[in-house]
Amino acid sequence: MLYADYNGSAPLLPEVREYLKKRMDSELFANPNAIHSIGQKLSRGMEKCRALIAEAVGAYPDQIIFNSGSSEGVSTILHSVLEYAPKDKKIVITSALEHAAVLKALSWYKERRGFEILLADIDQNGVVKVNELKKLMEKHAGKIALVTIMASQNETGVIEPFEQIAKLCREQNVLYFSDTTQFIGKAEFHFEKSGVDFAVCAGHKIGALSGSGFIIAKDPTVIHSLVFGSTQERGLRGGTQHYIGIETLAIALSDFKEKGHKLKDLEASRRWFEQDVKQAFPKAVVIADDVPRLPGTTLIGYPGLHGQAVQIELESHDIFVTTSAACTDNQPETSQVLKAMGIHDDLGRGVIRISLSYSHGQKDYEFLANTLKSAYAKLIKIHSF
Amino acid sequence: MLYADYNGSAPLLPEVREYLKKRMDSELFANPNAIHSIGQKLSRGMEKCRALIAEAVGAYPDQIIFNSGSSEGVSTILHSVLEYAPKDKKIVITSALEHAAVLKALSWYKERRGFEILLADIDQNGVVKVNELKKLMEKHAGKIALVTIMASQNETGVIEPFEQIAKLCREQNVLYFSDTTQFIGKAEFHFEKSGVDFAVCAGHKIGALSGSGFIIAKDPTVIHSLVFGSTQERGLRGGTQHYIGIETLAIALSDFKEKGHKLKDLEASRRWFEQDVKQAFPKAVVIADDVPRLPGTTLIGYPGLHGQAVQIELESHDIFVTTSAACTDNQPETSQVLKAMGIHDDLGRGVIRISLSYSHGQKDYEFLANTLKSAYAKLIKIHSF
Repeated sequence: MLYADYNGSAPLLPEVREYLKKRMDSELFANPNAIHSIGQKLSRGMEKCRALIAEAVGAYPDQIIFNSGSSEGVSTILHSVLEYAPKDKKIVITSALEHAAVLKALSWYKERRGFEILLADIDQNGVVKVNELKKLMEKHAGKIALVTIMASQNETGVIEPFEQIAKLCREQNVLYFSDTTQFIGKAEFHFEKSGVDFAVCAGHKIGALSGSGFIIAKDPTVIHSLVFGSTQERGLRGGTQHYIGIETLAIALSDFKEKGHKLKDLEASRRWFEQDVKQAFPKAVVIADDVPRLPGTTLIGYPGLHGQAVQIELESHDIFVTTSAACTDNQPETSQVLKAMGIHDDLGRGVIRISLSYSHGQKDYEFLANTLKSAYAKLIKIHSF
Repeated sequence: MLYADYNGSAPLLPEVREYLKKRMDSELFANPNAIHSIGQKLSRGMEKCRALIAEAVGAYPDQIIFNSGSSEGVSTILHSVLEYAPKDKKIVITSALEHAAVLKALSWYKERRGFEILLADIDQNGVVKVNELKKLMEKHAGKIALVTIMASQNETGVIEPFEQIAKLCREQNVLYFSDTTQFIGKAEFHFEKSGVDFAVCAGHKIGALSGSGFIIAKDPTVIHSLVFGSTQERGLRGGTQHYIGIETLAIALSDFKEKGHKLKDLEASRRWFEQDVKQAFPKAVVIADDVPRLPGTTLIGYPGLHGQAVQIELESHDIFVTTSAACTDNQPETSQVLKAMGIHDDLGRGVIRISLSYSHGQKDYEFLANTLKSAYAKLIKIHSF
């Protein structure tokens, strides 16, 4: 079996599974905010995890606010900035590439709070044009509450120029949130060096437990509770912490820190795989072929072939991929992201997304290449009848 | 060891631990919203859990909306009702007994959205006076957006007349949210029969994984996303579901359904325990002694003795209790709830909360009685020097 849907959700890391098995034999289950020694022990453990996580992402521990994952992170950041924005700052700049968590929230703020949502220009690879963004920001100087452009695109794997955008935002004194859901744990990331004001992480994307995650905030005092409660997370996020999830976040990010150097080999193997398929099937198209992408992400299509047919064909060989983002409807349509990139239905309906992790290598891509080539050969034959 | 802080957080049930150990050996980890067969299998599993949970709490599956726990549940319900309330309905009726998750959220809606927050009268046991509430509701007829009064109080264990309140609200056509965080899994609960419009549950209070939980909504279309995302939970809660947590919720509530009949014995043992201690120490006070309380909750104090001293003394015998709600600051002060009940500092600073579950019985209470009596004897001696 080859599970190749790490952008959808990463399976629990083997290290996390082993940890949880042992964890089940301990007696350390309690409210980490309780006064007794079990609670206090859990609380200290949680703070140790916070420190490990902070180090792994290049932040300070008090910049990490634990929550239930990236969608909550996104909603909290937008709430924190937009609900409390000065009255004359009613513009948000984003891109058509963003995840539904961002775009739906922004629609809400447009509809119910009167914000104006502007889309940054992108090129045919789905890369935000920084110069155009600069002009847009200058045009609306003083009126922009927030710029929110992702670090890497979940479907295509395209890496956005988020560090350049961060610099631009800093120069123009505008807050910048970069959705790093698909970036942290999949590429080298250092919060402080990135220059962004807010980032997010979801445990299930990095091999930690579902329902865990965190915000990273350059200035945590900017964050306002979306989930109200007591003094948990210094009053910035109510609710008893998902402490077991937090422990697995620390394991997953420590694992990445140790093994992240493997990403170079992963990327080389991915490039080999893409070349190999394209050589055998010159009509096959790797989306955003020429621009920096996540080391383990390939969105590949064959014009006229249906993505789901390819996906099912691969699955019959125990390879698990998706046709687009897991979170969208999985309808046999060109995704919004590909539409925004100007990709027509003939190709857009035919793509599959292959996403692996730093634990994978050349052998996995060889298996993928052989199986995908057989699938294409078979389906083209059927198609041409 | 006797862990007696189930109202703070219930340790993972043995059944949940065994399940998770085996779960770690499976390959079923993916995004339950993904198109491939692993995702689809997880999705079907999640819906099976939803059906089991719905049955256990007396609701329909589509009335269950999974989230990260009760604080999120509370915030979502208040957002859903208050953000979308008609302009002439600006009053919320609550009580001084509510959890910080409710009271802090309501303060926010008062401050930022102009709601008027009225407190229902309570008696000296901390029971809401239904007749007074009725008068209050009649006085403000047509202007009330929501009544929110909890099902049972987390510190004292006092059960509020939430079914009567639900009837009252139904008669007056007002939405009613009852915070059932401390009720579900600790007493018999049937959503439909209760008549309440909204209820909540947190996994960590019932022996399921931290970071899991759900809302029960009589009419789920009233719910609006607090956490934005894709079409997860039919668009009512964004974010990839904590599917592993959801599996443990189903196990915990099925376990309760099977063993809930033990609550009667638990309550009898608790009453024996309280009598035993009071007989030995007539000055000892069981808070809200005479009114219906959760079967396994005792808040007991000895005037002049410091609660934390008693807690530490018990802990030296491996009994883990708290002095008040885990979520509050654990400061050596009378809690807000006890203050609202008119309890003075002399007693209020001296209480400890003992909370057990349906898995406990007479032996546990005998151990507790003997240890608590020794603790009182020792501390009174020191105190009287």
